[in-house]
Amino acid sequence: MSSNGVVVGLDFNHDRIHVALGDRAANVLGEVAADIDVDNSAAEAVDAAVEMVEALRVSAGVEKSQLVGAGVGVPGPIDDRTGALASAEILPGWAGLPAREALSRRLGLPVQVENDANLGALGEATLGAGRGLQHVFYVRVASGIGAGLVIGGKLYRGAAGMAGEIGHVQVRADGLLCRCGNRGCLETAASERAILAVLRPTRGDGITRQTIFDLLAADDVGVSRVISDAGRAIGRVLADICNVFNPEAVVIGGELAEAGDPLLSGIRESIDRFALPSVAQVVKVLPAELGERAEVLGALVLASTPDQVTADRALPG
Amino acid sequence: MSSNGVVVGLDFNHDRIHVALGDRAANVLGEVAADIDVDNSAAEAVDAAVEMVEALRVSAGVEKSQLVGAGVGVPGPIDDRTGALASAEILPGWAGLPAREALSRRLGLPVQVENDANLGALGEATLGAGRGLQHVFYVRVASGIGAGLVIGGKLYRGAAGMAGEIGHVQVRADGLLCRCGNRGCLETAASERAILAVLRPTRGDGITRQTIFDLLAADDVGVSRVISDAGRAIGRVLADICNVFNPEAVVIGGELAEAGDPLLSGIRESIDRFALPSVAQVVKVLPAELGERAEVLGALVLASTPDQVTADRALPG
Repeated sequence: MSSNGVVVGLDFNHDRIHVALGDRAANVLGEVAADIDVDNSAAEAVDAAVEMVEALRVSAGVEKSQLVGAGVGVPGPIDDRTGALASAEILPGWAGLPAREALSRRLGLPVQVENDANLGALGEATLGAGRGLQHVFYVRVASGIGAGLVIGGKLYRGAAGMAGEIGHVQVRADGLLCRCGNRGCLETAASERAILAVLRPTRGDGITRQTIFDLLAADDVGVSRVISDAGRAIGRVLADICNVFNPEAVVIGGELAEAGDPLLSGIRESIDRFALPSVAQVVKVLPAELGERAEVLGALVLASTPDQVTADRALPG
Repeated sequence: MSSNGVVVGLDFNHDRIHVALGDRAANVLGEVAADIDVDNSAAEAVDAAVEMVEALRVSAGVEKSQLVGAGVGVPGPIDDRTGALASAEILPGWAGLPAREALSRRLGLPVQVENDANLGALGEATLGAGRGLQHVFYVRVASGIGAGLVIGGKLYRGAAGMAGEIGHVQVRADGLLCRCGNRGCLETAASERAILAVLRPTRGDGITRQTIFDLLAADDVGVSRVISDAGRAIGRVLADICNVFNPEAVVIGGELAEAGDPLLSGIRESIDRFALPSVAQVVKVLPAELGERAEVLGALVLASTPDQVTADRALPG
């Protein structure tokens, strides 16, 4: 690879595609995003993404021969062996699609596929709120709740690429059924979906994420309390994780992180209450800095730096 | 350092000192253990340890000039900045002693000090039940409950050397007071101390760890149930950790691990019940293989291999 090679970052969100080009030091050369229905048709989403990469390449004045690789984010767990989406429930139109192969062929580039929370972790830990830190736990609070771990400056994926599944830690033994089949998972108590369900009876069926932010801006006490309850539930789980991982920082991102202080102070409160004092004293609770760009920038980092993932992946025996 | 250098492993347990000599590939050249009151006097324990190292060196036919370094285990958290014991409560006779410096001066060798659960993790992951695996979570079930993480084949210590504090994850909101000041910690529900307290009312004040093993061997249903309850409580916490860390194996060591099947199957049951299926399917629950040698062999591994710890330690700012 030439040292002036250019890498592609590509992030598929449920209803949006984000593309970036960068140099080998992950400096951004150009960026573009578009609203596209990703969930229901992988084929159309891939077509659109390939066109976006091509248009961005031309407008940035980059030669095709300069492109050396791509990092790609998808909103769901990846099967390490095939590079395909592992769950049909989360991304119905993508089930079984060998995403890595398909994108590699269409882009004519080596491709690394990674789930969105892992890329968000890499983006925020390298270029965002956690830059300069070694051990960062990134939480993505959105329609679901995911997380990614950066350990020693590198993405940690676990034995089967499943590390960071914080959303499915049980927080209430008698809680609501979760899409994973278990009951009372953190997602059923503190995700955007859960919060909207709590607010609907009093605020009407039309309530959306934007309504929540508007009500918070208008100092609505009830909504503020529901958000800090969600923060405390997330912080309760993070306290245990801090006892075990002893991170320097937890970084809170995802669409719901815009709720800001009530969410973050709820998280802080539970960590201070439930983690060991020496662990709680060390850990910073930081708002993410990259917003919706976290994943596409993480994809750039993944593609720009070889050896960005901790150790060898353990392959199933 | 010469390639035929010899390293020292030294493990201080509460009432026992264990010493080993090994080559740079952590092959054991000699081993010795002695019952000594470590808890109440650091000075006497250090004197005894230095004598044991010297006697073992002579009997193993090793020249003084061949010794290149030592790894040392102590049963409590280490302050990264000073190499001193961080808690006076756990090891009263050692509080504030700069253990690393004192031992380095007395042995005339560079010394790395580490807590017992971290060394047990390194020993079991490298030479014991987890050998050949990359991502191993080691749990030490003894008078307290500690844990150590090996990630990508290396010991992971966390931001302040506090990683692995699984014993202080709260499992019962209205549980017993813990020595850490919190309430309902795993240690108050499933450590040897907690189990003995549960059994005393029916089995008498004289009950000990050995009595427990004897009763298990005699198929005592009540004791077996108490042990598997403890296993389920430990497994409940491990299920959450597996969701986040996605290890290839959890290895169960410490003095109480000898309880064997009721403990291990309780742990397995809770992991299968509470972790995500794709996470639970991957993780093996393994009994430790090195017994009381785990820590001293981990100390050997620590001393024999440079770069045995993940990334740079993050120093407090």
